[in-house]
Amino acid sequence: MLFDIGSRDAAFKRITQEIRDQILTIAQAHGSHTVIPIQGSGTFAVEAALTTFIGRGDKALVCINGQYGERILTMLRRNGLAFETLVTPVTEVPDVALVADRLATDPEITHLCFVHCETTTGILNPFSALINVARANGVVTIVDSMSAFGGIAVNAQTDRFDVLISSGNKCLEAPPGLAFAIVANTLLNRKSTHATTYSLDLYDQWLSFERSGEWRTTPPTHIAQALHRALSEHSMEGTEARWARYDRVRERLTKGLRPFGITPILRQELQSPICLALQAKHWISDQESFEYFYNFLAADQIYIYAKLHAPSQTFRIGCIGQIQDDWPDRLIDRVERFAPTVARRDSSRKFACSSLSREQINA
Amino acid sequence: MLFDIGSRDAAFKRITQEIRDQILTIAQAHGSHTVIPIQGSGTFAVEAALTTFIGRGDKALVCINGQYGERILTMLRRNGLAFETLVTPVTEVPDVALVADRLATDPEITHLCFVHCETTTGILNPFSALINVARANGVVTIVDSMSAFGGIAVNAQTDRFDVLISSGNKCLEAPPGLAFAIVANTLLNRKSTHATTYSLDLYDQWLSFERSGEWRTTPPTHIAQALHRALSEHSMEGTEARWARYDRVRERLTKGLRPFGITPILRQELQSPICLALQAKHWISDQESFEYFYNFLAADQIYIYAKLHAPSQTFRIGCIGQIQDDWPDRLIDRVERFAPTVARRDSSRKFACSSLSREQINA
Repeated sequence: MLFDIGSRDAAFKRITQEIRDQILTIAQAHGSHTVIPIQGSGTFAVEAALTTFIGRGDKALVCINGQYGERILTMLRRNGLAFETLVTPVTEVPDVALVADRLATDPEITHLCFVHCETTTGILNPFSALINVARANGVVTIVDSMSAFGGIAVNAQTDRFDVLISSGNKCLEAPPGLAFAIVANTLLNRKSTHATTYSLDLYDQWLSFERSGEWRTTPPTHIAQALHRALSEHSMEGTEARWARYDRVRERLTKGLRPFGITPILRQELQSPICLALQAKHWISDQESFEYFYNFLAADQIYIYAKLHAPSQTFRIGCIGQIQDDWPDRLIDRVERFAPTVARRDSSRKFACSSLSREQINA
Repeated sequence: MLFDIGSRDAAFKRITQEIRDQILTIAQAHGSHTVIPIQGSGTFAVEAALTTFIGRGDKALVCINGQYGERILTMLRRNGLAFETLVTPVTEVPDVALVADRLATDPEITHLCFVHCETTTGILNPFSALINVARANGVVTIVDSMSAFGGIAVNAQTDRFDVLISSGNKCLEAPPGLAFAIVANTLLNRKSTHATTYSLDLYDQWLSFERSGEWRTTPPTHIAQALHRALSEHSMEGTEARWARYDRVRERLTKGLRPFGITPILRQELQSPICLALQAKHWISDQESFEYFYNFLAADQIYIYAKLHAPSQTFRIGCIGQIQDDWPDRLIDRVERFAPTVARRDSSRKFACSSLSREQINA
């Protein structure tokens, strides 16, 4: 990551091409799809996919059971694209029969959008079933697989998605700054593409990779080199082994936190090994009590996701990335020591809040 | 850059805020402006600025004397925004009196867009004069200062631009992946902002920084930490000293290359110390002969910009960044050794092209 490589030099073009190939290999998508990297966060790539492949005359059906489904909606609305929604509680997956019914009865629907693993809760949505039902109705699929790709197996030959978006900094374990879409070759033509911006135009970006091997505008060269290395490590480990590694973290956390009244909100069969959404009803009821908990952990260099999801009163712990074996144990130990501080805090709320500021605890 | 910091943790919010403050200090813009960082390349930030601050009823006058002025045009066209152009040869700056006349006679023009230092040639456009003429006509200024900011002094109090865009990876000497706009506070309201995408909405991005200190979507945390450090180094050196350092590189290259018939296409008074656009008429006439030259330098680990600008038959050498004192000398030495190879190549063109592929030379 530290090497300052020329972004238009042959050596960097080779890195870009190898990144594209390796991602295609993970998706088992050689021959049918292509990989289009793009600068920025995962959301940039999702909006690029939505605005490149959904046009003015189209209508998208969006399955929503969490924040990232909602964000797809926000982006479609912002771009003036037509949509319908199918909203499910955050603890439930969309009903595939209902999706099939909506697609069959509304011939105006041209695209189906859903989130593979909804990071709000770590729920695993029915990837294959949704793709199959869309294909059966001749509807294009756009899947936000941000937190799933690389940790959950995807096979583009059996599950023939049209567009799948992810980012280097989730299960591929690279630093953030580069995202990508895996796109069916059949969509890469002027007729199927409708970008209204320059920066988020995946078709134009693809043309540049194909014609010259270059990114249209300055790529994050250091992040690309880190992703290149991270993909080698992924290929050595394999998606299944990576899933198993994450799942061990999930299991250790789930079992270890239960005695303290901290439990996942999902039923086990819906739970991915990506992240846990947890309730701790005795302790955490609002942003203030969550921050107290977050800072208590951070003071021991244990970092969980820094935000409470207010609607479900849950906080999240990620199971992905290079988590060392002893980290879940350290987290559980720390939670054990948290209980007495809560008692103290409850009996002397004012003292606890004023003497332990966020900055002091983090210092 | 190697530290994996939590993007929503207090420590990273502090880094983000310090980046924003330090950039404001460089622009002497405290009190009047704010800094809005955005993920991606500089072009992403330029398009974000154009689409956030130019609305449907507006019309922009775009001064064009190179590729980056042309790109502004491409983006306005793509987004369906109204524009007029004022095109000047790449070796000339826009005529300020002509701009004044256009603004005075066309009351529909609401925005003036121009490039501060046009990287196509390294030409320095008349920054203060263009801003003053726009202000005198009540027109909003949007300046692409990608390759200039941090190397060429900007004073927002004397030159009251409305929006100035730059990136971490030019004169601020950080790695690529993060760009920013410096925006007049007066523009940050619902009435003055018109974003049609979510990702490129600078107003919404600003609201998030102001409300929570957070980026709306995952920031490039490693690149941000590198920029944070690069800004400290900039504050120790200062913009004037940095300009002088770049100018010494420009001068050494200009003098050293002249004996070989390699000369800048700009008149000296228009030349910035950012980069040189050079003609080498004896040697470089097309893409093929340029690549031969590029690879000859690269074989000795000397990297110039990897593309020929075909319309002006020039190639570019950057003078910015951490260029060590002996690098210009090494480049000149290498050019001296290039001359005999050209003779050989001319007498045996087939041999030179087939035996020295790009890959072999770079290996």
